[in-house]
Amino acid sequence: MPETILAEVVTIGDEILFGQITDTNTQWISTELTNIGIRTVRKSSVGDQAEAILQILQEAHQRANVIILTGGLGPTKDDITKHTLCRYFNTELVMNPDALAMVTGFFAKRGRAMTELNRLQAALPANCVYIPNHWGTAPGMWFEHDQGDVRGRVYVSLPGVPFEMKSLMTNLILPKLQAHFRTPVILHKMIRTVGIGESFLAERIEQWEDALPPQIRLAYLPSFGQVKLRLTATGTNAQQLQQELAEQVANVLPLIDQHVFGFDSDELETVVGRLLKEKSLTLGIAESCTGGYVSAQITKVPGASAYFWGSIVSYANEIKVKELGVDRAVLAEHGAVSEPTIQAMAEGVRRVLGTSVGIATSGIAGPDGGTPDKPVGTIWIACATDQRTVTRLLKLGQYREQNIQLTTNYVLNLLREELLTLN
Amino acid sequence: MPETILAEVVTIGDEILFGQITDTNTQWISTELTNIGIRTVRKSSVGDQAEAILQILQEAHQRANVIILTGGLGPTKDDITKHTLCRYFNTELVMNPDALAMVTGFFAKRGRAMTELNRLQAALPANCVYIPNHWGTAPGMWFEHDQGDVRGRVYVSLPGVPFEMKSLMTNLILPKLQAHFRTPVILHKMIRTVGIGESFLAERIEQWEDALPPQIRLAYLPSFGQVKLRLTATGTNAQQLQQELAEQVANVLPLIDQHVFGFDSDELETVVGRLLKEKSLTLGIAESCTGGYVSAQITKVPGASAYFWGSIVSYANEIKVKELGVDRAVLAEHGAVSEPTIQAMAEGVRRVLGTSVGIATSGIAGPDGGTPDKPVGTIWIACATDQRTVTRLLKLGQYREQNIQLTTNYVLNLLREELLTLN
Repeated sequence: MPETILAEVVTIGDEILFGQITDTNTQWISTELTNIGIRTVRKSSVGDQAEAILQILQEAHQRANVIILTGGLGPTKDDITKHTLCRYFNTELVMNPDALAMVTGFFAKRGRAMTELNRLQAALPANCVYIPNHWGTAPGMWFEHDQGDVRGRVYVSLPGVPFEMKSLMTNLILPKLQAHFRTPVILHKMIRTVGIGESFLAERIEQWEDALPPQIRLAYLPSFGQVKLRLTATGTNAQQLQQELAEQVANVLPLIDQHVFGFDSDELETVVGRLLKEKSLTLGIAESCTGGYVSAQITKVPGASAYFWGSIVSYANEIKVKELGVDRAVLAEHGAVSEPTIQAMAEGVRRVLGTSVGIATSGIAGPDGGTPDKPVGTIWIACATDQRTVTRLLKLGQYREQNIQLTTNYVLNLLREELLTLN
Repeated sequence: MPETILAEVVTIGDEILFGQITDTNTQWISTELTNIGIRTVRKSSVGDQAEAILQILQEAHQRANVIILTGGLGPTKDDITKHTLCRYFNTELVMNPDALAMVTGFFAKRGRAMTELNRLQAALPANCVYIPNHWGTAPGMWFEHDQGDVRGRVYVSLPGVPFEMKSLMTNLILPKLQAHFRTPVILHKMIRTVGIGESFLAERIEQWEDALPPQIRLAYLPSFGQVKLRLTATGTNAQQLQQELAEQVANVLPLIDQHVFGFDSDELETVVGRLLKEKSLTLGIAESCTGGYVSAQITKVPGASAYFWGSIVSYANEIKVKELGVDRAVLAEHGAVSEPTIQAMAEGVRRVLGTSVGIATSGIAGPDGGTPDKPVGTIWIACATDQRTVTRLLKLGQYREQNIQLTTNYVLNLLREELLTLN
C-alpha cells in the first residue's frame, strides 16, 4: 500500500482570525483533496503577519507533503503572502510576463482601468511555477521544495476569493497534484438520515459498528434534524473497497431503513426534486415563518423549474387571506399559528398556483411574538396532495435562524414522505 | 499597556478535516474573544486522533494564554477529546455528580430515555472545573494549567454543536475569561461599502490609509458585491481609542460617501428594514431567478413583519401572469428575462400585495437556460414605488449560487437607494 499523502490547508488573513468573514475555502479544499486520496491532517488560519505565516509554513513542512495556502494575495497593503513566501524560500519577487499579460488582459476584456496595485499582482517569487488565474487578478503559485526528497514537497498559494480558488483548484491544481503524487485509494460512502438523534442511532447500529473491519471507519455527522453516517475505506484496490463498502451499507440499512432519505451528496431538496420529477408532479409553497427559506432551498437545485412553479410568502395575515384564500373567520378564531390555518394555507397554495402538491409553514420563529399558550418555537407545517392534507405541530427552540432551518428540514421531509405514498 | 492575552481556537473532528461539515464555531468564537480584548493568534482543526489532539495542545500551549477546544464530546465512539485531555493533563475520568444530575434532568425534562452512552457524558477529567451545559448533554470543561504562571493558562473544552457552544460561551465562559485575565482594549469599527471594487477603493483612500496612526490598523474584507473596511484600534484607554476611531472614520467617509451603506454589523437587509420602518413603508417582493432567497434575507431580520408583507416567487411564467398580472403578450414578445417583464413584475407585486414598495428579480441563474443573446448571468432587477419604477440589467457569471447571492445583494441595494429618495 503506497504511503499516504498528507495535506495541510492554511488560510491567511486577519479577517478570518478576527472572525469577520467565514472561511469556506478550507472545507471545500479538504473535501476535494480527500476525493483524490490526499488526507488533510491539519487546517489552520493565521493572520497577515509574516512571523505567523513563517511559523505555520515551518510546522506544516514537518507534518504534510502538500501545503495549500489561500488568501493574502490581494492588491492591497495588508496582503503579504507573496513577500513572506519569498522570505521562506529565500528568494525574491520578479515580474512574471505571462502573469502580467494575464492581468492586463483581464482588465482590458472587462473594459476596466488597471491600477499600479493590479500590475504588481503579476510579480511572483522567482522559484514558483506560475499558475494562470483565468477567473481573477491574483495568480496562483506552485512551489516544489526539498528536491532531495524523491516526490518533492509541494506548496500551493492561491487567492482567497472562493470562486477563483475553486476554479484554480479544479482545473489546474488537483490534476497537477494527482500527476505529482502516487496516492492511495480513499473511498467515502455517506448515509443520510433524518428524524432520529445521534445517540439513538448509535445504539441501534452498535453491533454493526463494532464489527466493522479495520480499513473502514465510521463517523456520525449531526446537523439540523439530520445525522449523516460517513463510512471511510482506505486501501489500494478501489474495486475491492467499493465492494466492502457496499456490503457494510447493505448490512446497516435494514436497521435504520425508515430514517434514511439519501446517500452521499443527496440533500432533502435534491431528493424531493428527484421524486417530483419521477412522478411528474409540480410543487407550490406557502411560507409564513420561514419567509422564503424553503423556496430558496428548493430553487438552489439546478433545473428546479421542471417541478417548482412558485411560492406565496404570506408574512402578513392579509396576504394569507387575499393570496391563499384562508378564511378570515379561521384566522380570527384560531390565529395564524394553528392547524386550521396551516391546512388552509397548504390547500390554498395548491389550488391557487394549480400545482399537484402544496406545502406550508406557519409559526413563531422568534425572538419575539411568543405567548403563554403559543411560545416561540411553536410551528405548524402541512403538505396537501390530491389524496389528503397532512399537518404536523413542531415544538422548537428560541433561536430564530435555527427555527427557520429546522422547520424547512421538517417540511421538506414531510413532503418526501408524502411523495413516497403517491404513485 | 497590559500584556495582550492571546487565544488559540481548535476544532476537533474528522468531519471538519474531511470537509464534511462547515465549521462556524471558530469564526463565532474568535469574534467574541476579540470583543473582550482577547486576540486570536491561530485557529486549527485536527481530527479525532489522540496524537493529533496532543500535538495541537502542546503547540497551542507555546503560543496562547487561552486555548478553546470545540467538538469531540459527543456520546459516540469516534469522540475522544475527554480521554485525550486526561492524557495531556495526566489525570483520569471521574463521574461528576452535578454533571450526571444535569444530563439525567435533561432527558427527564424532555421525556426521553437516557442511554448508557449519555450517562458516560457526565464522566469528566479529575482536574477540570465542570461547566454546566443547560442546552445539551455534553458538559463544558475549564482547566487552569501551569499554576507557576500568575495568571495561569486556561484550557476550555466545549461541545461542537453550535448553539450549545454559543450558549456556554456567552453565559459562562466569556465572563469567566474576563474575570480571569486583565485584557487590553481592542476596538473595531467596520465601514460597509457596496458597488466599488477593492483595488479602486484602495486607490481612493490611499493617502488616508498611509496617514493612519500605528495603533489603528486597516483591513479590506471583500464579499459578494461589497467591501468592508475594518479599522482596529489597540491600546489601554477605551475612550481615547473610541475618539481616534471616530476621527479616522470622519476623515475617510467623504472620500467614499456614496458607496457606504452601513457600519459594523449592518447588513443590507437590516439597513433597508430600518429605512422602511422609519418611513412607515411596506415591502412586497416578486422573485423569479432568486427563488425566495431575497425574501429569506429580508425575513432573517427579527421584527421584519413590521414592514414586510409578503412575496410571490413566480418561477413558472404562468404564475407571473396569474399572480403578478404580467401581460402574456409582453412575456411572449420580450420573454421572462427582459425590461418590460421585470417592470411589470415589480409594479405587479406592489399592486397585488398592496405594499408601498415592490422589488423584483428575473434572470438566468444557470447553469443551464442560457442563449446567445441572453447568456447565463443575464439578470434584470427592478424597484417600484409610488414615484417611479427603476430597472437595472446585471451581467453576472456562470455560477448559480453566486448569481443568486449577487442578485440579492444588488436588488437590496437598489431598494436602499430608492428608499433614500423617498420622504
